[in-house]
Amino acid sequence: MAVTADLSVSLDLVAAGEDQSLEHPFGRRVGAGERLHTWMFDHRDENADEVSAITAAGAFIMGRHMFSPDRGEWDLEWRGWWGPEPPYHAPVFVLCSRPRDPLEMEGGTTFHFVTDGIEAALRRALDGAGDQDVAIAGGPTTINAYLRAGLLDELRLHIVPITFGEGLRIFDGTPDLELVPVSSRTTPHVTHVTWRR
Amino acid sequence: MAVTADLSVSLDLVAAGEDQSLEHPFGRRVGAGERLHTWMFDHRDENADEVSAITAAGAFIMGRHMFSPDRGEWDLEWRGWWGPEPPYHAPVFVLCSRPRDPLEMEGGTTFHFVTDGIEAALRRALDGAGDQDVAIAGGPTTINAYLRAGLLDELRLHIVPITFGEGLRIFDGTPDLELVPVSSRTTPHVTHVTWRR
Repeated sequence: MAVTADLSVSLDLVAAGEDQSLEHPFGRRVGAGERLHTWMFDHRDENADEVSAITAAGAFIMGRHMFSPDRGEWDLEWRGWWGPEPPYHAPVFVLCSRPRDPLEMEGGTTFHFVTDGIEAALRRALDGAGDQDVAIAGGPTTINAYLRAGLLDELRLHIVPITFGEGLRIFDGTPDLELVPVSSRTTPHVTHVTWRR
Repeated sequence: MAVTADLSVSLDLVAAGEDQSLEHPFGRRVGAGERLHTWMFDHRDENADEVSAITAAGAFIMGRHMFSPDRGEWDLEWRGWWGPEPPYHAPVFVLCSRPRDPLEMEGGTTFHFVTDGIEAALRRALDGAGDQDVAIAGGPTTINAYLRAGLLDELRLHIVPITFGEGLRIFDGTPDLELVPVSSRTTPHVTHVTWRR
């Protein structure tokens, strides 16, 4: 049972825009988010193992902006980006500052809203995962928080060979990490690299 | 005949400190430069092919601070960091703003001082390389300049699994690149990743 994170990043380590909104969930830069995820959607066969691994955990943790574009009060009509049956099929713990009742979706995904911090969310996710892994599903700010706290066991970056020059980056505000290289694999559109604590 | 660049970087893409000096050629952060290059010096057997490739070119280009810690006027006593026989065994073109006569070292390395910019340096290096590759030897600022100008054919990063949180980074000021993933290889202390234009 490990705490893992998968993240698609550009060469310059950008994973998301700083200006997410309902219309532009990855920020205003045209097509940025789509281009970071093309390897998954348009080239799934080339990257089947890595795509499968992303949703193989027994519980997930995500930042509020990965769940919802709204800020401040909850829009209770909003049920996530993923339609009625999200791809998690497991409990998902959403880090946030305002309480909200759990939201049960089809296919076994229930969103729980956690207001008491990343360690509390991890305890609840470990409880919910049974003997499976817990995945920090993103975004980069959330993964950086777990890296900084020394709570992430395995980081799997999917490096897309483009640069953006601005945006939210993995490893921002995480000095003095020391990880161990585990594996790497290049496919025609992406380089998969894994490190462990 | 390709224009290549090798660079050792941290997870957060830092390749050098911002405060290089004679005492601290990679910047003041204790041991930073040494830790980025341990894979070459202490674990050469694990990474023999990648180490050999770094000095396999027919000519080299480097920034002034990679040649010399002094600023402003040349200290003509300074003959580089590498002792009497530098590891290049080929012409090395040093980008700088003040002219200096060529400096011939033992073993076939001659430093040429180029004051008319990165394109002129590349023309001279291509002439000097015969049918071999030209390597942009660093530092990160120089490699970024060639990336930005679209003049680099192959970039080989050697990713050391540590973070610094500050310093000179590869891909700083190079938005809108689009490269092609070529290969990757993980060894116990470093991940080697190559992209082409």
